[in-house]
Amino acid sequence: MVEYNDKALDATFSALSDPTRRAILSRLALNDLTVSEIAEPYEMSLAAVSKHISVLAKAHLVSQQKEGRIRRCRLEPEALNAVSNWIEHYQRFWQGNLQSLENFMEKLKD
Amino acid sequence: MVEYNDKALDATFSALSDPTRRAILSRLALNDLTVSEIAEPYEMSLAAVSKHISVLAKAHLVSQQKEGRIRRCRLEPEALNAVSNWIEHYQRFWQGNLQSLENFMEKLKD
Repeated sequence: MVEYNDKALDATFSALSDPTRRAILSRLALNDLTVSEIAEPYEMSLAAVSKHISVLAKAHLVSQQKEGRIRRCRLEPEALNAVSNWIEHYQRFWQGNLQSLENFMEKLKD
Repeated sequence: MVEYNDKALDATFSALSDPTRRAILSRLALNDLTVSEIAEPYEMSLAAVSKHISVLAKAHLVSQQKEGRIRRCRLEPEALNAVSNWIEHYQRFWQGNLQSLENFMEKLKD
């Protein structure tokens, strides 16, 4: 169980700020993949892809299982949930304020 | 209308990866605030706070209205919506896969 404090959210948002890492996550949402499978469509080195995966793992967005010499990567949705909870919380506030403003305008009209 | 391509999402996620910037957004979700009002609870310089606001503005998370010598900041929820849409899209995929796996396990049991 990861505690979603400020530091964990920093790491998650930072990991998501790169288009290659978001593309990796979107493929892992369909299937678990080995590091070589993840690297296949890219022209970058296996080391560069591994570095991206390591950033995702540190942000708890991806877990890795060793199977002999192969590392299989899996999407861990809990960190994504923490991000969407954070956003929803403030969206609710904001939408609540918008509603209050609308109610206030309605009252002015009456 | 901001187009939420990869570059815009990079900027939004990157802006959100800092706890001070997230705290500023959470206060702007309650009220529009001037730059000095935003700076008030912090021990950092007004210039440092302005820099954070400028990062949020570049990511289209905050807009600024000039009123004489005062700049008033407002939360712009559209960029937050783009982030939550991105997350929801992959959560749906992932939850769909989890459901397929559960169905498969059920069939194995029968």
